[in-house]
Amino acid sequence: MRYQLFYWSGIQGHGEFVRLALEDAGADYADVAHERGDATIMPFLEGARAGALPFAPPFLKAGRTVIAQTAAILLYLAPRLKLVPAVAAARLYAHQLQLTIADLVAEVHDTHHPIASSLYYEDQRAAARQRAKDFRQHRMPKYLDYFENVLVRSDGRHALSAHSYVDLSLFQIMSGLEYAFPLGMHRLHRKLPHLHALVAQIAERPRIAAYLASPRRLAFNEDGIFRHYPELDAAR
Amino acid sequence: MRYQLFYWSGIQGHGEFVRLALEDAGADYADVAHERGDATIMPFLEGARAGALPFAPPFLKAGRTVIAQTAAILLYLAPRLKLVPAVAAARLYAHQLQLTIADLVAEVHDTHHPIASSLYYEDQRAAARQRAKDFRQHRMPKYLDYFENVLVRSDGRHALSAHSYVDLSLFQIMSGLEYAFPLGMHRLHRKLPHLHALVAQIAERPRIAAYLASPRRLAFNEDGIFRHYPELDAAR
Repeated sequence: MRYQLFYWSGIQGHGEFVRLALEDAGADYADVAHERGDATIMPFLEGARAGALPFAPPFLKAGRTVIAQTAAILLYLAPRLKLVPAVAAARLYAHQLQLTIADLVAEVHDTHHPIASSLYYEDQRAAARQRAKDFRQHRMPKYLDYFENVLVRSDGRHALSAHSYVDLSLFQIMSGLEYAFPLGMHRLHRKLPHLHALVAQIAERPRIAAYLASPRRLAFNEDGIFRHYPELDAAR
Repeated sequence: MRYQLFYWSGIQGHGEFVRLALEDAGADYADVAHERGDATIMPFLEGARAGALPFAPPFLKAGRTVIAQTAAILLYLAPRLKLVPAVAAARLYAHQLQLTIADLVAEVHDTHHPIASSLYYEDQRAAARQRAKDFRQHRMPKYLDYFENVLVRSDGRHALSAHSYVDLSLFQIMSGLEYAFPLGMHRLHRKLPHLHALVAQIAERPRIAAYLASPRRLAFNEDGIFRHYPELDAAR
């Protein structure tokens, strides 16, 4: 099966969670908009294609099946890519964790766009400073403490009893938060030993290491979800 | 199976999507915090219970299985309650739609709390006015137009080929938005004939009608997700 991933070119964004799974599994896939332009996305959003109607990218085409929503794509892909245990309860827990990661990602986005996605960052900078401060001081520690506890509650090395796409997604949020909030993350460093060990362990997986060194891995930038605006970061 | 639902008492909130499914199916369930207080929720959040660790309510206990995240709970419950077609592709589409409903719900919450959940509404009212205006003018029409198209693309009467929990969830967001933004919703009324017909059809289902008339259905209020603050609503 050759999978087709559709996501805006130029940013990691939500699509990166799917890319990491496909890359880690060595799956055969095309990153369609990256290869042939963002216009390839539009017919699906306009309802001109058969199958499920996506509200927004990312969406995946697998044969005739179209699936949108990052967590739903991973729910579908993970058993096929052997990136989740076979036990139903573990799959459900993996999905629950991915949905909590999605909630965190939405809050990260809103640190730089607290008023409207349709406005420039520069037009909502004052509100962004306030929201980012609350995020750094309350929400980011709360989420990361939770995921640290998830690892401790498992074997300390994985979210589940074995490697899964959830570990890849935790790698991605840790990497993104380190990029966006280096000072805020530095302050939390000592409290998150298992998460930091997980990041190192994922980065050393051969296929992930190769992917991160390839041009397929876009750099974090200020068009994506994880943006580094120094005025939104602080040690406190 | 007697299901145990855990969600903060006093508000409909995210828990209401699960309640509507349980009620529509005539399932045997306890709304635990509603019956015995919010303190019943804490041991789960603190990791003092076996099974999946929830980040936040709602979560469901089904025998020894604990499941958090509203959309994951419905993914688990729907086949058991016969609230989703048996075909795998339809179940996946239902889940994708529920996740898009979850995104909308998060945006509704942020209309009154654009800066921080930890602050009072009154302390972020200026930002709330700006965000609510963008929501009414751009986001709410975009989401509702999408769901209207989902109905049209199906049989016009359901999101899927038959009644499902997605229809119940669409009923809930339409009801909530009518409560929170009556002027904004009035302006969109003519554009959403299928969604409005769906609301009427769901409200007439015997178990839903009985539920809505019962004390189990809490009223919308200004502690929940859908809040009516007149200054956040307008016809434009």
